[in-house]
Formats: sequence, C-alpha cells, structure tokens
Amino acid sequence: MNEFDTVIRGGTVVTASDTVRADVGIRDGRIVAVAESLSGGARVIDASGLLVMPGGIDSHVHLAQPAFGGPAMADDFESGTRSAIAGGNTTVLPFALQPRGASLRESVMDYHKEADGKCYCDYGFHLIISDPSASVLGQELPALVGDGYTSFKVFMTYDDLVLNDRQLLEVFDCARGCGALVMVHCEGYDAIRFMTQKLEAAGKTAPYYHGVSRPQSVEREATHRAISHAELTDVPIMVVHVSGREPMEQIRWAQQKGLKVYGETCPQYVALTAEDMKGLNMDESGGKYVCSPPPRDHASWDAIWEGIRTGVFQTFSSDHCAFFYEGEMGKLNPKARTSFRWVPNGIPGVETRLQILFTKGVVEGRITLNEFVALTSTNHAKIYGLYPKKGSIAPGFDADIVLWDPNRKETIRQELMHHGADYTPYEGMEVTGWPVMTLLRGKVMVEDGQIVGEPGDGGFLKRELSPYAVPAGGVS
Amino acid sequence: MNEFDTVIRGGTVVTASDTVRADVGIRDGRIVAVAESLSGGARVIDASGLLVMPGGIDSHVHLAQPAFGGPAMADDFESGTRSAIAGGNTTVLPFALQPRGASLRESVMDYHKEADGKCYCDYGFHLIISDPSASVLGQELPALVGDGYTSFKVFMTYDDLVLNDRQLLEVFDCARGCGALVMVHCEGYDAIRFMTQKLEAAGKTAPYYHGVSRPQSVEREATHRAISHAELTDVPIMVVHVSGREPMEQIRWAQQKGLKVYGETCPQYVALTAEDMKGLNMDESGGKYVCSPPPRDHASWDAIWEGIRTGVFQTFSSDHCAFFYEGEMGKLNPKARTSFRWVPNGIPGVETRLQILFTKGVVEGRITLNEFVALTSTNHAKIYGLYPKKGSIAPGFDADIVLWDPNRKETIRQELMHHGADYTPYEGMEVTGWPVMTLLRGKVMVEDGQIVGEPGDGGFLKRELSPYAVPAGGVS
Amino acid sequence: MNEFDTVIRGGTVVTASDTVRADVGIRDGRIVAVAESLSGGARVIDASGLLVMPGGIDSHVHLAQPAFGGPAMADDFESGTRSAIAGGNTTVLPFALQPRGASLRESVMDYHKEADGKCYCDYGFHLIISDPSASVLGQELPALVGDGYTSFKVFMTYDDLVLNDRQLLEVFDCARGCGALVMVHCEGYDAIRFMTQKLEAAGKTAPYYHGVSRPQSVEREATHRAISHAELTDVPIMVVHVSGREPMEQIRWAQQKGLKVYGETCPQYVALTAEDMKGLNMDESGGKYVCSPPPRDHASWDAIWEGIRTGVFQTFSSDHCAFFYEGEMGKLNPKARTSFRWVPNGIPGVETRLQILFTKGVVEGRITLNEFVALTSTNHAKIYGLYPKKGSIAPGFDADIVLWDPNRKETIRQELMHHGADYTPYEGMEVTGWPVMTLLRGKVMVEDGQIVGEPGDGGFLKRELSPYAVPAGGVS
Amino acid sequence: MNEFDTVIRGGTVVTASDTVRADVGIRDGRIVAVAESLSGGARVIDASGLLVMPGGIDSHVHLAQPAFGGPAMADDFESGTRSAIAGGNTTVLPFALQPRGASLRESVMDYHKEADGKCYCDYGFHLIISDPSASVLGQELPALVGDGYTSFKVFMTYDDLVLNDRQLLEVFDCARGCGALVMVHCEGYDAIRFMTQKLEAAGKTAPYYHGVSRPQSVEREATHRAISHAELTDVPIMVVHVSGREPMEQIRWAQQKGLKVYGETCPQYVALTAEDMKGLNMDESGGKYVCSPPPRDHASWDAIWEGIRTGVFQTFSSDHCAFFYEGEMGKLNPKARTSFRWVPNGIPGVETRLQILFTKGVVEGRITLNEFVALTSTNHAKIYGLYPKKGSIAPGFDADIVLWDPNRKETIRQELMHHGADYTPYEGMEVTGWPVMTLLRGKVMVEDGQIVGEPGDGGFLKRELSPYAVPAGGVS
Repeated sequence: MNEFDTVIRGGTVVTASDTVRADVGIRDGRIVAVAESLSGGARVIDASGLLVMPGGIDSHVHLAQPAFGGPAMADDFESGTRSAIAGGNTTVLPFALQPRGASLRESVMDYHKEADGKCYCDYGFHLIISDPSASVLGQELPALVGDGYTSFKVFMTYDDLVLNDRQLLEVFDCARGCGALVMVHCEGYDAIRFMTQKLEAAGKTAPYYHGVSRPQSVEREATHRAISHAELTDVPIMVVHVSGREPMEQIRWAQQKGLKVYGETCPQYVALTAEDMKGLNMDESGGKYVCSPPPRDHASWDAIWEGIRTGVFQTFSSDHCAFFYEGEMGKLNPKARTSFRWVPNGIPGVETRLQILFTKGVVEGRITLNEFVALTSTNHAKIYGLYPKKGSIAPGFDADIVLWDPNRKETIRQELMHHGADYTPYEGMEVTGWPVMTLLRGKVMVEDGQIVGEPGDGGFLKRELSPYAVPAGGVS
Repeated sequence: MNEFDTVIRGGTVVTASDTVRADVGIRDGRIVAVAESLSGGARVIDASGLLVMPGGIDSHVHLAQPAFGGPAMADDFESGTRSAIAGGNTTVLPFALQPRGASLRESVMDYHKEADGKCYCDYGFHLIISDPSASVLGQELPALVGDGYTSFKVFMTYDDLVLNDRQLLEVFDCARGCGALVMVHCEGYDAIRFMTQKLEAAGKTAPYYHGVSRPQSVEREATHRAISHAELTDVPIMVVHVSGREPMEQIRWAQQKGLKVYGETCPQYVALTAEDMKGLNMDESGGKYVCSPPPRDHASWDAIWEGIRTGVFQTFSSDHCAFFYEGEMGKLNPKARTSFRWVPNGIPGVETRLQILFTKGVVEGRITLNEFVALTSTNHAKIYGLYPKKGSIAPGFDADIVLWDPNRKETIRQELMHHGADYTPYEGMEVTGWPVMTLLRGKVMVEDGQIVGEPGDGGFLKRELSPYAVPAGGVS
Repeated sequence: MNEFDTVIRGGTVVTASDTVRADVGIRDGRIVAVAESLSGGARVIDASGLLVMPGGIDSHVHLAQPAFGGPAMADDFESGTRSAIAGGNTTVLPFALQPRGASLRESVMDYHKEADGKCYCDYGFHLIISDPSASVLGQELPALVGDGYTSFKVFMTYDDLVLNDRQLLEVFDCARGCGALVMVHCEGYDAIRFMTQKLEAAGKTAPYYHGVSRPQSVEREATHRAISHAELTDVPIMVVHVSGREPMEQIRWAQQKGLKVYGETCPQYVALTAEDMKGLNMDESGGKYVCSPPPRDHASWDAIWEGIRTGVFQTFSSDHCAFFYEGEMGKLNPKARTSFRWVPNGIPGVETRLQILFTKGVVEGRITLNEFVALTSTNHAKIYGLYPKKGSIAPGFDADIVLWDPNRKETIRQELMHHGADYTPYEGMEVTGWPVMTLLRGKVMVEDGQIVGEPGDGGFLKRELSPYAVPAGGVS
Repeated sequence: MNEFDTVIRGGTVVTASDTVRADVGIRDGRIVAVAESLSGGARVIDASGLLVMPGGIDSHVHLAQPAFGGPAMADDFESGTRSAIAGGNTTVLPFALQPRGASLRESVMDYHKEADGKCYCDYGFHLIISDPSASVLGQELPALVGDGYTSFKVFMTYDDLVLNDRQLLEVFDCARGCGALVMVHCEGYDAIRFMTQKLEAAGKTAPYYHGVSRPQSVEREATHRAISHAELTDVPIMVVHVSGREPMEQIRWAQQKGLKVYGETCPQYVALTAEDMKGLNMDESGGKYVCSPPPRDHASWDAIWEGIRTGVFQTFSSDHCAFFYEGEMGKLNPKARTSFRWVPNGIPGVETRLQILFTKGVVEGRITLNEFVALTSTNHAKIYGLYPKKGSIAPGFDADIVLWDPNRKETIRQELMHHGADYTPYEGMEVTGWPVMTLLRGKVMVEDGQIVGEPGDGGFLKRELSPYAVPAGGVS
C-alpha cells in the first residue's frame, strides 16, 4: 500500500519565504509531506529542473457577467477557468454581481448556476454591491458573509454600478460590522463623464481617448476618497488594479499613516501603455487594449515596480475581463465605433498573468522567486480567507500545484490561449517561464498545454473571514 | 492753496514689503505722496508712534444671507460694515448667494438693494453658485464676471448649497472660460451626513459633536477632491478657511506640483479649539463656537502657522458669519437644542481679525509686520482684482488707511464690538495692537473707537479679473 | 532502522510565510521531512501546544571585544553564546574587530582563538574595519570575504573606530568590488564630541546626558551621509540599530528612491526610553541603559513599529554588548562616575530579544507570527549569506529549532539570565512567550531553561556572499 | 531753491510688493518722496516707459581673491564693480577671505586696501573663515561682527578652505553667540576627492568630468549635513548657490520642520547645463562653464523654479567669480589641460544676473515683477543687514536706482560686458529687459551702457546684524 497517491520528485519547492530542493507527497488531494526524499507514490511525477509552486490564485477575475446592453463577456465559467488552469492557476475569485434592484442572494445563486459543474479550477465569489439598500446591508450581506462570501467589491464609476459617497460609507460601515473585506474600484465617475463629454464634443472618439478621459488624477482622487471613507469608518480596504504613481502614492501615504489599506496591481500596468490604445493610425484596433483604469506609460511601469518592491502592493491579479474583438459581440461592434465610450472595458489575462510577472519580475531581477509566489498565490489566499487551505506548499494544504519551467521561452500568441476571447492583448510578447503541469487537489489538470481535467473538477470555496479585514480602532 | 486734503504725519508706513518713517499726503480720496516730510494739508493727522497701514481687506465675510429656515444672520450690511471698519478694515467682500432655482443676476440685485446706502466701508461681491444651470453657466455667470463680480464660491457641503462633482467640474470649467477665481468650501457632504446620523443615533447631539461630525479627514478629502477637479479643468482655485494640518498639506502638495491652488485661513484656526465647543459641562454654550470647518486643536494651530510661515496660505480672513446666541433667532433656539445639526454654522470675527493676527503673529514673533499687511490686505487686493486701487500705501492707491497702535493692550469683549451679534467668541482674549483711526478714501470713519463716518460712505467695487486666475495649461 | 534521529511531533511549524500543523523529521543534524505525521525517530519530542520555529539568528552581537582602556566586556564567547542559546538562538554573528594598525587577518584569527571550542551555538564573524589601509582594502579584506567573512561593519563614531568620509567611501568601494555587505553604525562623531564638550562644560555629566549628547538629528545626519556615500559608490548597505523616526525616514526615503539600503532595529528602541537613563534621581544607575544610539521616547517606539510594519526594517537584532554594572570593571567604575563619556556603551540583550518582540509584536497584534520568524531568523540568514542552510524549517535546513510556548508568561529578571553581566536592562518586564527547548543541528541544547549542551557544540560558519549585496548600477 | 536734487519722472516704480506709476524725488543721495507728480528737481530724468527699481544687490560676488597657486581672478574691485553697476547693481557683497594661519582682521584690512577708492558701487564684506582657531572664534570674529561684517561664509569643500564637521559646529556656535549669519557652500569634500581620483584614474579629465565628480547627491549630502549642524547649534544658515532638486528638497524639508534655513540660487542653475561643460567635442572650451556646484540639467532648472516659486529660495545671486579663459592666467592654462581638477572654479555673471532672471522669470511668466525685485534686491538687503538703507524705493532709502527697459531685447555678448574676464558663459543668449540707467545714492553712474561715474564713488557698507540670524530655540 502506498503512503502517497502522488509524489512530485526532484523539483525545487518554492513558497513565499523558502526555496528548497524537496519532494512533495500528496494523499487524498492534500499535501502531506515535504521531504528530501520520498519513496512510494501511486503516481510519480518527475519535476527535475522545474519549480514546484503553489498554483496561482487569481483573486480578480470577471466571468459571465451580464451585458448591461453592451456585448456579453467572451468567457463563461468553463472557458474562463480552462484558461486559468492552463495558465497555472488553481483558484479564481470571480464576481457575483448584484444588478440594481435585485436580491443579493438571488444574484449569487444565479452565478452558482452558471458555475456549477463547469469549472476547471476551484472558485469563490466576491460580491459586487450595486444597490446597497437597507435589506441588502441589514440582512443579505451579513448573511452571505457568514456563508463564505467574505469579500465584496464596490465601484466608484460605471453607470450601472457606481455608488455615491453616502452609499460607499454605508457599505464600508456594514463591512466593518460583519468583517468582510472591501475591494474598491477607484475612478471618479463624474470626472470621467465630464471628460468624455468634452472629448466627444471635440470629435475625439477613437479608443485612445478612453485613456484621456480618465487620467491618473481621476484615479488618484477616487483612491484618496476611498481611503478617507475607510479612515472615517475604520474599515480596511483593498484598492484594486492600481495603474500608476499617483494612486500608488496615495496608498503608500495611507499605509504609512497606519491605515489598513491594501493594494493590487495587474499585468497591464507593467506591460501595456496608453499608446497601445492608439491602434494602428488611431483605428479601432486600439480597442483591444481598452480596460479601466487604462494602461499608462513607462514611467508608470516604474512606479508600479516601486510599489511592488517596497510592499505597497500585496497582490498581482489579472483583472481578467474578456470581450471579443471581432463581430457584433465584440469591441468592434457598430456602437463601439461611434465612441470609445461604448467600447467594453476589459481585457483577457488570466492565462498570461504568471508568465508576465515571472519574466518582468523574476527573470529581469526585480523580485525574488519567493516574492513571485507571494504576489501570485500566498497573499491572495491570506487576504481572501483561503489560508491555510490554499496558497502554499506545506503539509495540510490542498495539493494545488503548478510545475513551472523557469527557462522555457515562449511568445504569447492567441493560438496558445484557452480563453473564449478572439485575441490576447499580449500577442507577440516574449516571455521566459511557463507552466508545464498543473494539479488541482492532487489531480493533474493540465499537462504540456493539454487540458486533461474535466469541467466540474473545480469546486466552490466557502471562504473564512479575512484576517486582513480586522479594523484598527473605530468610530463610536 | 493746499496741495493735500489730508496729511498723515509722523507715522511709520508699512506695506507688504517695506517699513519706513514717512508722511502720507492725500488728495481727492487717494494717496498722492509718500515722503520724508510733507507740509500743508487741510487736515493734519498726527501719527507719531503709530503704524500707517493699508486698511484691512476682509475677503471672506457673510452678511444678510437668507435664513434657509434657520435663524437669520445677526449682521446686515450696516452693522457688518460698521463692525468691519471699527476693526480697521476698509473693504469687505461679502457674498451674493443664489438660492436654488433663482436667477444669479436677480440674486445679485437683491444683495445690492440690501447694501446700497448702508455700508461704512467699500465692498464687492463674490457670487455663491448653488444652481449651476445651463443658463447660469452659459450666460449669467460670464456676464456678471464681466460686470466686476470676478470671483465666486462653491460649496461641497450644506443641504442648500452643495454641488456634486459633476457640477463642480462644470462650474470650474466655466470659471476657466471667463477668468473668474473660484473659492471652494471643502468639506465632504456625504461624510458629514453619515457621521451626523451616527452621532445623533448615539444620542451625541451637544454642540461639541459638531466637530466630531466633520473631522479633518473629511475636510482633507474634499480639499483633495477640489484640487483634483481643478487639475483636470486647469483652473486656479482658492481653498478657503483651512483648519489644520491635513488639508494644509494637500494644498502644499498641489502647490509643489505646480498647480495654482491658493489657501486661506482664519483667526478661529489659531485661536479656538474643539474644546471650546464643549461649553460648560457640555451645555449648549459651546454653540457659540460652532462654525465650519470647526476649530481643531493646538497641534492644528501649529500646522496653520507652518502654512502661513512657508507661504501655503496667502490670505487671512475672518469668515465672519454672525448669529445671535440668545433668543428665538439665536444659536440657543429650541430646534438647535435638539441637535448640533441645527446650530447655525458661523461666528462673528470681522472686527477682531487684525488684532488676533497682530498679537499671535507679529507680537509673538511668528510673522513680520510686512507679512501682516500682506496677509490682511495686499494679498486680498491682488487676488481678488482690487489691486492697485486697494491694498497698499503708495501714490495712486485709495486712501484706505488704518492707524495702528502696536503697543495698545486690550481685552476683547462684547461691549467693545460694533457687530450685530450678542457675543464674541473671543471674549476675554488679551491682545496687543489696536486700530485707533480708520480712513476710507481719505475720510476719517473711526476715531478712538467712535464711528464718525456714515452708512453709505462705503461704495460698491466693480473688480478686475484676478491675475491669480490665469490658468496654466489646459484641457483641450 | 529509524529513518529519523529525532522527530518533533505535534507542534505548529512556523516559517516566514507559513504556519502549519506538522511533524518535523531530523537526520544527521538536518531537517529531512516536514509532514502531517511522521512515525519513527530515535528520539521523539512532543511539541503539542508549541510553536516550532527556526532558531533565532542574532546578526548583531558583540562578544569579547577589547577594552580600549575602558572596562572589558562582560561576555566572552562561552557566556555570550550560552545566553544566546538560552534565549532561543542557534546562530550569532559577533564581530572580529581590527584594532588600528593591526592586520585584519590576524585580528580575525585572534577572535577564532577566543571562540574555538567555547560556543554553545553556531557563529560567524562580521569584520570591523577600523583601519582601511591600502593593504587591508587591497588584499586582506577581499581575501577574507572569499574565506566566508562576507560582511563587515564600519563606524561613523567612537574614537578608536571612527572612519572619515574618505575612508568610508573607499571601504564602500572595496565592498562593491568584492561583494561584501556593509553594516554602518550611523552617528556623527564630531557632533557628539561637540555636544559632549558642551554638556561637560555645563556640568551635565550624569548618564542621562549620554542621550542628550547624541540626539536623533545626529543619528539622522550620519544615516543620510552613509546613504549618500552608498549611492555614490553604488553599494548596498545595512543601517544598523536604528532608534527612531528621523533615521527611519532617511532609510525609507532611500528605499523609495530605489537604493539598496536595509535597516535593522533592536529591542531597546521599542522597550526602553531616554528616561531610563535618568536612573533614580539622576544617580548613576541610569548607566545600566547607556547604549548607542540611545533609547529615545514613546513616539520613537511608534516610529520603529511603523518602520517594521511597512518593511523599512528587515532585521530585529539585539546589539548585545554586555558590561558589568558593579565593580571596577563595570558601568559604575570611578572614571565613569566623572562623566557619561566614560560609561561603556552597550547593554546585554541576546537572551531577551525574542521574548520582547514576541510580546510587543505578536501578542500585542503589531506583527504576525510569520513576520516574527522573518525578523528574528529568516531575514538574517538571507541577508548574511547563511541561507538556505539556516533560517527556516524545511527539508535541507540545519535542524536549528526553537520550541516556543506562546502562552507562557514570565517576568524578565537577572536570575533567569545566562549571560555574564550582573544585570538586565529589562528587569521586571513582563513577557508572554518563552523558549522551552532549543536544538542546534538536531542536538537538544536547552531544555526547560537548563543548558544541556556543551561549549564547543557550536561551530564556525563560513558564509556565502549576500544576495542583498549585489549592486544596482555603478560608478565607472 | 529746489526741493530735490533729482527727480525721476514718469516711470513705474516697482518694489517687492507694489507696482505704481510715480515720480521719485531725491535729495542728498536719498529718496525723499514718491508721489504722483513731483515738480522741481535740479535734474529731471525722464523715465517714461521704464521701470524704476531698487538697484540690484548682489550678495554673492568674488573679487580679487588670492590665487592659491592657480590663476588669479579676472576681476579686481574696479573691474568687478564696474561690471556690477553696468548690470544694474548698486551694491555688491564680496568676500574677505582668511588664508589659513592668517589673522581674520588683517585679512579684512587687506581687502579694504584692494577696494578702497576703486569701487563703482557700494560694497560690504562677508568674511570667509578658513581657520577657525580659538582666537578667531573667541575674539576676532565677534569683534568684526560688531564692526559691521555681520555675515560670513564657510566651505565644506576646497583644499584651502574646507572645514571639518567639528569646525563647522564651532563656527556655527560662534555665529549663534554673536548674531552673525552663516552662509554655507555645501558640497562634500571627501566625496569629490574620491570621485576625482576615480575619474582621473580612468582618464576622464576633460572639463565635463568636473560635473561628474560632484553630482547632486554630493551637494545634497553636504546640505543635509549643514542643516543638521545648524539644527544642533540652533543657528540660522543660508545655503548658497543651490543647483537642483536634491539639495532644494533638503532646504524645503528643513523649512517645513521650522528650522531657519534659507536658500540662494544663481543664473547658472536656470541657464546652463552640464552639457555646456562638454565644450565642442569634449575639448577644453567646456572649461568656460566650470563652476561649483556645477550646472545640472533641464529637470534641475524646473526644480530651481519650483523652489523660487514656492519660497524655498530667498535670493538670486550671481556667484560671480571670474577667470580668464585664454592665456597662462586662464582656464586653458597648461595645468588645467591636464585635468578638470585644475580648472579654476567660477564664472563671471554679476553683469548679466538681472537680465537673465527678468527674461526667464518675468517675461516668461514664472515670477512677478515684485518677486523679481525681492529676489534681486530687497531680500538681499533684509537678510544681510542693509535694510532699510538699501533694497527699496521709498522715502529714507539710499537713492540706489536702476531704470529698466522691460522691452529692450539684447543678445548677451562679451563686447557688451564691463568685467575683466575675456568671455561670458552666456554668450549669444537673447534676453528681454535691460538696465538703461543706474544711480548710486542719487548720482548717475551708468547711462545707456556708458559708465559715467568714477571709481571710488562706491563706499564701504558697515552692516547691521541680520534679523534673519536670530535663533529659534537653543542648545543649553
């Protein structure tokens, strides 16, 4: 009888703090031993020359969200999680969005229906609160937090999602009461509307003007505002998808004041620029890169790295939000051609997140291997209540493991992708480091780029309260 | 035949840069000569031992504004300007407030009717824009700016006045187009409402909780937001009545970035604290000190002095906004006793501004005499389009002059005041330095505390565009 | 046949990133397995209810340094390492000090003679360069770095050790060439001499004036200077024993500029204040707390925690430097009574470092368990070239392990100490968390406060080049 | 009988605060009246279309200093003050340099001999302390301060002048005792020597490497050090000739802390760059621009303007220090060709200071006319104890006046200069604004570029203690 179902032998195990030559023993879907040498194993996987890392956790992914009158998303739970696991991820945290007027609980149930039996990796849900009515804040939200939906997101922009300051304060206050972690999309709605109208009136409607309509000062202002509301209500917040120096410095300032403000950034802010949105001769192909906040410039890349290096940011997520480029459903749809205002905001990225950070971070010498693991997996698990079930290679953790070839060079191209979209914004980018095998709770899901797992292998994660959501002092 | 109508002889003339022993010759209401020795003069005023300074210009004064359902103001134009001139001022800039739905032009005309023939000192009007409709921004406001109402104020709080961000942006944009200078009351409406409701629900309704309901972070957030909107629209702004370190640092940060952001502070922020609002045993007498932003603490005093010393603030104004304390009309009215929310916001101060700054600034060694003149007169004139008619002692300026005894010690007390209110929040404060004579365009208006001028001696000032309102770059 | 020499069973393993319930298997002095459940083991240690952490690494310890005419140190290698291991440490990095005029190599050999066969824990040596002659920088130092003495310290103060700026630059430049990591004691010599002379002339000679003679501005200036020299020569540096906000902010500023400047702080800067040096009625008992930089005040404690929390500091060391208090050899010696100038600088602390950080950091909620391990062990190993031999609990690491009772409450008192000194500056301090067993390379050295190991069990550590010492750009 | 010796009629009088159309009446060398219209005047000067400003005060000028083995200066007192007055200046403050070992008093007497009867404008002396012996600090310096030499300069670099930190502290302490204002040349001697040796060893000896040998970090470090010493001794200091952002930010930081630290900058830091020192193809012509600190880059220009605009700098001086370019005595001398180390440090500039600031400051919209006067005259007078004798246009001031044509365009070229040097570093620079007449104590000295005054018209100025030198608190 074998002590282990699977043994990963000969690899180099990397955690958020340590890098060691060790074998990993798996039983019943969990890691049970990390040792110099393990014998046995019903299945033995040779990891010589490979890094054995905790599977990526992408805590910011949009799947199967409603169209709101615009194009539908290119990824449902099946294609989105297939893309995720192909990219070395074993857990994603998509959003369950409450349409205005709808019950939060029912919204969540709708997403469960979409996800159930479709997923290639594990998943939990952040809630999106678009309608913080008395019943939502007083009953539904606390109940759902208790049921394992322990984080939610609010928006400071978008017609269908924006909350005003009073609503933000009430939602923050509710989060404080029930121990949920609040994620905030920080861009100022009124400023964007004002700029959009100015630009359209001037005939500046190409996708490039998407970026002009929401400069860093607009993101910075909203970041400062969110931080101030968090300070007033004494509630920790996570500022998501930070794009450049100005918002980064606000988060740093808050952290130095002792406020519990966390930061997330994404591949697009170290790999794309506003110039990409110009497309070819200001044609609509720039629309491929439209997301919010928009990519900035090379100086912003430096600022983001400074934030990563000095600990301002804890997580590096994809903000995967895929749309088609071609077709009636895509970014090139007729309405989108009339103004950047109608180009759907979002780009695919769940499958390329790890490679981009590995290349620009580890290979180019900006971060260590351990920081890579922390930024892509461990910190996500700790911050979103999945730890110590997910996020490391150690006894007791789920055997969610990616085997990573640190030397493999690839050129990112659409044909390699497993997502639903018809393009990748990173087309042609050369990377070093690639996932060669991914295990989910001990089961091999991807092998040499081939999906060998099944939809439904991934399950729902009921999450614990985040230890990062504990307030410091308090309003009385 | 006399070359001069009046000669002020033997005094020490102080301007924003110079302090010289000189005589001042006046003819036809204007200064025509400053010389070592002037002979002649139909009237000769002995200024031996006195400072001869430009009359104070108080660019932030509220007079005869409507009650909005609460108590009426204690000062109309007659009592308010009487108090002003008694305090050494020769120009005030009160506000012409547009009620929502009203025509801006008609609102201005209403204030003219109130002021006409009543004033003891010269006056101009800032507009208050509460309803930035298309006709207001498209027609009325530019026309009024052209007619000499070259500055206006917007509010980020107060039920009847608050503008949302979109409105702020449109108003800023309009200001940029017509060259007006925008003054901004920076406190966040929603945050204050949120806090007020929390406090009231907890039974914390005494005047002291007025301060708790609007902490510095709320003022700082609004200041940052106003600055961001000004940056986006490329328009200079004046942040008025700054109360402490947090908003001060935002203004400094903006100035260092090269933005045209100016700052004003007031006596209450270096002479009162939140403790004053506690009154005696948390009784309602704390209501005497209720104003917005509220007075803070001693550390804030230091921060305000730091801002004055390092040039963050250009003007020191009173924000005079007087209410009765006693009676149905006063801060103790029955409704006000139910919650700080109903205590009218504002305190009298136009008559004590100069003495407080002279004592705490000049006498205590924090600023020079020349800085005193700049902060109380010259900078107001330059910033609000009154220069070079007002604001200095030199040939060509209006003979608006205060003779100041730098050694006279007084205790501020209500019986010395000429305002309409029934108290002064500075009761009992000992000051050094007092105005002993004030001349308005050459006419002696106050002599040894006695008003010798007439209501109607003061006239309306049509102002030039502010040179401080010229934008730097611009949205296109 | 047993797979393991020793198995630690039932404990909670803590690393710099993870906290897991796991058993630890040890063979031949090394950790070979971490697993949910390990059977076997020649010796089984029950760790139920205990934390299993990597043994403390104290990278800043002074042992058996020469007297320079003053009192000798209270700790030689035997007593010092006994105290270290009793306090839960398994590695110390004391200093091999080059007296002026002496050969660096010979100085090192002298220390080896002192240490050889005497030590209860493993040890390496930092060099102290007091005489950077051409032969030292050109030959001896590079050779010693190659031999495993991969870090050295320079002083910006002390008569017998101070280097001038030119010497600092040359030493930094040499470090850059040979890949050594430079530790810098940042206090300004001339400023201290100047202040000391002033104070002595004023009759202010009690121990308390030690602190007055070297205020934070003196430490801050030297820190800025060292950083500037490091910037010019493009060499990473470690600023040791940082005492408060002013120097902390210099390090943070450097880090944000992208310079490789690291920071260390110590228990005395979060547990003692300048007031302690007042003793009882300004008597000489204040001398017990004299060290350099001196302890500051409670606001400085906050600043140090801010630096720890935001990643400014990587290591928490003791700067153990023990002297007797009583007797001719002590801090009360006749010469020391004439002026604070003659009170030996330094306090014991190697045995209480972990308890103080655990109590004030982990128990009081300022840091996590994992940060505790990073600050006391892992980061020291990584920074000083001992990793991956030392600094974690994982296969391949030396079995240097402390079993820690997180709930045990003790009062620090001299009778519990194993050091050579006749007092502890933390006498009477109540702590929570205490080491109950310490293993060195698999051998139990301390058990329930009893030393069961032998002098000589500890061995010399030839260290690798620090990965933290890799320069960024470079002077050419 | 005429009331006035001279009347300047029809001009626009500019002071540090005011700009007014006024006539100026002069009697006995002093201004006695400023009035709308003055009749009489033995001489009437038509100033229509011209600005009437206080003559420039250049508080940083080197004349006739000893060669120290290198080339002698190109300007003695006659040529230097001729150049000054031709450039619109009426007062200069050169330095009386104490050679090491020499008596300070005797050094001063030597300079008086050089200056006596030679000067075209008024002058005072700053002392340069190179040898702060006990007798210098104990007796000579206090006595000389009492005799009107109320400021002195110390150097943190240069072989013959550098003071070490202990000496700086003692000199600062002495200044505090006698109320003198200390000017500090902030560049780090050891760092420069270190870099120079490195560069020479690498064969990098062309003038361009002068700049490389003393980067901003070296100036910043010395600035921080000087500020720290000033903080410790509680003495105000003036940091002279600041070249860029890094030292500017140190001064700002000190000012915000409340320290009395003042700042000076110069034309070369907004008009020249390090590229100029490259000459043509790295030939020695770059030597024309060698001065210390060296000119930096365009980003530094922006930083200097930021410092001017936000009040970090109070004075704009020339740091005129002229050497010949050609000949054995010049910057091209044989020794200088062997290394930048031997190129004399300094450039001429006293004659072009006002035009450069007027053009880049006033004409290009960065500062106001009044700020121009403050930066070039008034602030120098106030800071260096010449006020209210010098520095403004008002009754009682010396009639030191420049008539300035704000519209005159000129190209700076050597043939227009009146200095002793054989080149100007600003050759070819186009400026707008030019002095058309200069009066010294009422006497016309320059008229349309022609010198009409005599050497000896300028007299020595015994100065008062600086009000800026009053300490804040104090060491005890």
